[in-house]
Amino acid sequence: MLDALPAEVSICEVSPRDGLQNEAAPLPLADKVTLIRALLAAGLKRIELTSFVSPRWIPQLADAEELIRTLPAPEGVTFSALVPNATGLERALRVGIGEIAVFLSASETHNKKNTNKSIEQSLETFREVVPPARAAGLRVRAYVSTVWGCPYEGAVSMTRALEIARALLALDCYQVSLGDTIGVGTPAQTKQIVTAFLAEIPAAQLALHFHDTRGTALANCLVGLELGIRDFDASVAGLGGCPYAPGAAGNLATEDLVFMLHGMGIRTGVDLDLLIEAGRIAETVVGRPLPGKVHQAGQPKLRGV
Amino acid sequence: MLDALPAEVSICEVSPRDGLQNEAAPLPLADKVTLIRALLAAGLKRIELTSFVSPRWIPQLADAEELIRTLPAPEGVTFSALVPNATGLERALRVGIGEIAVFLSASETHNKKNTNKSIEQSLETFREVVPPARAAGLRVRAYVSTVWGCPYEGAVSMTRALEIARALLALDCYQVSLGDTIGVGTPAQTKQIVTAFLAEIPAAQLALHFHDTRGTALANCLVGLELGIRDFDASVAGLGGCPYAPGAAGNLATEDLVFMLHGMGIRTGVDLDLLIEAGRIAETVVGRPLPGKVHQAGQPKLRGV
Repeated sequence: MLDALPAEVSICEVSPRDGLQNEAAPLPLADKVTLIRALLAAGLKRIELTSFVSPRWIPQLADAEELIRTLPAPEGVTFSALVPNATGLERALRVGIGEIAVFLSASETHNKKNTNKSIEQSLETFREVVPPARAAGLRVRAYVSTVWGCPYEGAVSMTRALEIARALLALDCYQVSLGDTIGVGTPAQTKQIVTAFLAEIPAAQLALHFHDTRGTALANCLVGLELGIRDFDASVAGLGGCPYAPGAAGNLATEDLVFMLHGMGIRTGVDLDLLIEAGRIAETVVGRPLPGKVHQAGQPKLRGV
Repeated sequence: MLDALPAEVSICEVSPRDGLQNEAAPLPLADKVTLIRALLAAGLKRIELTSFVSPRWIPQLADAEELIRTLPAPEGVTFSALVPNATGLERALRVGIGEIAVFLSASETHNKKNTNKSIEQSLETFREVVPPARAAGLRVRAYVSTVWGCPYEGAVSMTRALEIARALLALDCYQVSLGDTIGVGTPAQTKQIVTAFLAEIPAAQLALHFHDTRGTALANCLVGLELGIRDFDASVAGLGGCPYAPGAAGNLATEDLVFMLHGMGIRTGVDLDLLIEAGRIAETVVGRPLPGKVHQAGQPKLRGV
């Protein structure tokens, strides 16, 4: 094992969207800008900024246009935003952003509760969103949630998840990010899922999005790495990702992922000290402790280690 | 990868000793007994109860004899206690316990700070402890700390760590537990260390003791498993293990280890629900939140997952 590790891994930082949309109250725009600037300073090149979901559903991200106008993407950086439907796409096209992401769940009940649509209705909606977005020159990414398990249905059909991924790629999404939305995945299941997807889909078109709810996120990343995946989603200090309880973990913390990857000689383009600093800023702006482990422990004190 | 997973793994539960010795004040004996009974009820078969270190150094464990007399090991269960020197062995032999453990560090500075001895002096002491313990019918385990890195010296010589392990096994310790005492290990380093040890020492004579300080403990366990290790140390709810900061993690939480192993179809003999209950008791007796992830999040709500 670990014989074919990559030289480099690409991280998609989701904290400004996935993290902040879960906060009880909307954050001031200035705080969001401060956080995103710190993430940029740390070297992150792919950042999911916000969402064009209706402000009635997610008031925390109602300032999407203002945020994008305030903070244009620096050279070499891709900012993206979630787009749920044609109205969202109109907003994205009007304000201008390089990349959008569509999203759905691999389980009917979770998709219904999250988007008020059946999976088929979600895919139908994406048929009205992705082609015009591509025609307008946008890159389009896709999220498939609950691939490792659904909080309502339990086990999720891998056949169905694969069908959904194929449909998204056929629509010309450049990458599908597979999510362990409730953090139930263990390495054997991750091997099974990733192997099945890689049998049909090139590694470059797949990303993995783990939640560290039960401590297995990095072990699952390791399995993905070993199988050839080079793209991982993470959130600074573990912000967001619907943790079950205060203090419990949702999203895999970007610092933890970077710590493991750098420790294995894998480049990320990220400066871990500056990323830890960005995590401190995240903690300050949300005003409560965040669960990331390197966020809490810091780097090892001696660099010889 | 993951092609040769074992059917079963043996867990050495260290919370009563490694966890409680780090508490600010000694716990009442009754609380220790309650915690240990809960660990037994969860199915743990190897529990490190206490230490025969001088009560002047560690007053938290001054009740070693009383604890052992109050709670005899049930049939099929091994209770163990740390023994630092010949005086400790006398206490162990007088009160009666099935297993003892000796301990030292792979780095001189850490060993000096922790035991006030050089590594050579520690090994000399063990030459006065292990043979009489074996002659009296005790099993003897050994811990080697800081194998992945030392908080004072940084990188640690693997050659030196191997020499130490060989010396301990030559003394007739049945197993050496290798510790990532400050939680700096990443999977590539773990592969390097475990592979080097396995080139000279049978897997059954090695255990791994990871700290989850930076989130990598389960990924490191996975590497150990894959390479053939079948023995892992852990502590319920992540109690103990000298975390850097309040809320930060030290020892790998037993619940997280069991969750991952069971999720991969590997037996541990532990009932995870009862183990989570034992973790709640640990939290109650120490009177503060504990960092384990499954401890915080619980089992997935739906068993179909």
